[in-house]
Amino acid sequence: MIDPRIAESFARQSMMTSLQARLIEADAGRCVIHAPVLAGFQQQHGAAHAAVAFALGDSAAGYAALTLLTEGQEVMTVEMKINLLSPAIGERLEAVGEVVRNGRRLSVVRAEVVAVADEKRKTIAVLQGTMIGVQ
Amino acid sequence: MIDPRIAESFARQSMMTSLQARLIEADAGRCVIHAPVLAGFQQQHGAAHAAVAFALGDSAAGYAALTLLTEGQEVMTVEMKINLLSPAIGERLEAVGEVVRNGRRLSVVRAEVVAVADEKRKTIAVLQGTMIGVQ
Amino acid sequence: MIDPRIAESFARQSMMTSLQARLIEADAGRCVIHAPVLAGFQQQHGAAHAAVAFALGDSAAGYAALTLLTEGQEVMTVEMKINLLSPAIGERLEAVGEVVRNGRRLSVVRAEVVAVADEKRKTIAVLQGTMIGVQ
Amino acid sequence: MIDPRIAESFARQSMMTSLQARLIEADAGRCVIHAPVLAGFQQQHGAAHAAVAFALGDSAAGYAALTLLTEGQEVMTVEMKINLLSPAIGERLEAVGEVVRNGRRLSVVRAEVVAVADEKRKTIAVLQGTMIGVQ
Repeated sequence: MIDPRIAESFARQSMMTSLQARLIEADAGRCVIHAPVLAGFQQQHGAAHAAVAFALGDSAAGYAALTLLTEGQEVMTVEMKINLLSPAIGERLEAVGEVVRNGRRLSVVRAEVVAVADEKRKTIAVLQGTMIGVQ
Repeated sequence: MIDPRIAESFARQSMMTSLQARLIEADAGRCVIHAPVLAGFQQQHGAAHAAVAFALGDSAAGYAALTLLTEGQEVMTVEMKINLLSPAIGERLEAVGEVVRNGRRLSVVRAEVVAVADEKRKTIAVLQGTMIGVQ
Repeated sequence: MIDPRIAESFARQSMMTSLQARLIEADAGRCVIHAPVLAGFQQQHGAAHAAVAFALGDSAAGYAALTLLTEGQEVMTVEMKINLLSPAIGERLEAVGEVVRNGRRLSVVRAEVVAVADEKRKTIAVLQGTMIGVQ
Repeated sequence: MIDPRIAESFARQSMMTSLQARLIEADAGRCVIHAPVLAGFQQQHGAAHAAVAFALGDSAAGYAALTLLTEGQEVMTVEMKINLLSPAIGERLEAVGEVVRNGRRLSVVRAEVVAVADEKRKTIAVLQGTMIGVQ
């Protein structure tokens, strides 16, 4: 299921459009985003740049938080930590964001990014961070 | 000054090309990267997406580490933490990466990303993380 | 189950003794440590100091990693990020550490710290970090 | 110089007392804390436990933030990332905390922890994190 306000916010992010990212799920403290591994966003060895895993994981985590905020709020990243586990090689990346704790203003979030290559799945990054709700 | 192997590695990163990033300095444990704020890499409010600050800060930090590694090595990000201080609004972003500690295999690095708008400078992000040298 | 080499290493950590921490479980990539909330390790409002949650979470995560390393290795923390969710109030703290990815030298780990007050459980901190195996 | 409200808050932290920590400086966005390396707070190899560096760095960073908050506020750690550079071996540890950005509610902070052995100084940890002012 996709919360309409997440869909609307997602559509306004040109970064997500450039990455050809698709919003797959956004509801009840959880958000899933998929994106292909594109030629234009790689590091020096042909894997997706760490910033792509960051972009997808951070957005999935932020939108997961936004699903739990009251109507009319927006969400911004306060801080985010990413551990990179493996090179982001494959056809596409899948990011799943979750809310660890939904506070009044600050939410603690987590995300995992998986690379899919020939139907094989490998976790390539885990993120943990803080989101803030803004009017 | 720009270490030639950094210039060569930088040129092979399609992510840096897509961001129109320019390598300004890379020598002796320090690296500076500039990039314009492009329309195609924004979040929902017209500021550069957090992933752009991440991409520039992470690359500046990584290349700062690489300047201190022995010839023939490459550098990969083990983990990176970013604190976002202000929206990335302006004409361009400037990232400065530095080495805090140069270890045999692991280097601890730091970066600061500044947005420049009408000649006014504002720090928009600080990063701290770990790089690993690989053969 | 408790891996004997974890028990032996744990016993040599005077920090764990001072915190009256007990090793509850340490096997197959998972470690559980319990400790009372002591009067001598508090912040200014009577909750356990953030460093106590850090100590327990970091140790649980590190020992979780050590259970998967080859005999004769030790584990050291490369870096650790902690998000504090609630004040650490209660009778005791319980930390659970897990391995997210077990690499040849670097392991990515995670931990959760729960405060128990009158049988009620509340997650007070989550940690994510990197451990290194050393000879 | 030591801001009196920092001195008062510091004195109420039993953790600081147990670590025999001394508040050396706390004013204008900067705080310095010293503490001996005690036998009771070590890891398995005779160095100070990572949680001691965390405790000192986190407190120095938090009190640095508090010096810039309005009277009557307290400060709490939202999140903190620590990179450990070297074992904490020596007679004493010195933590210096600084404010990177002082926001209305959230402050971004940094700290460095140095070990002093036979008058030789070595940076053993760097921290970066977020503090929140609370009434």
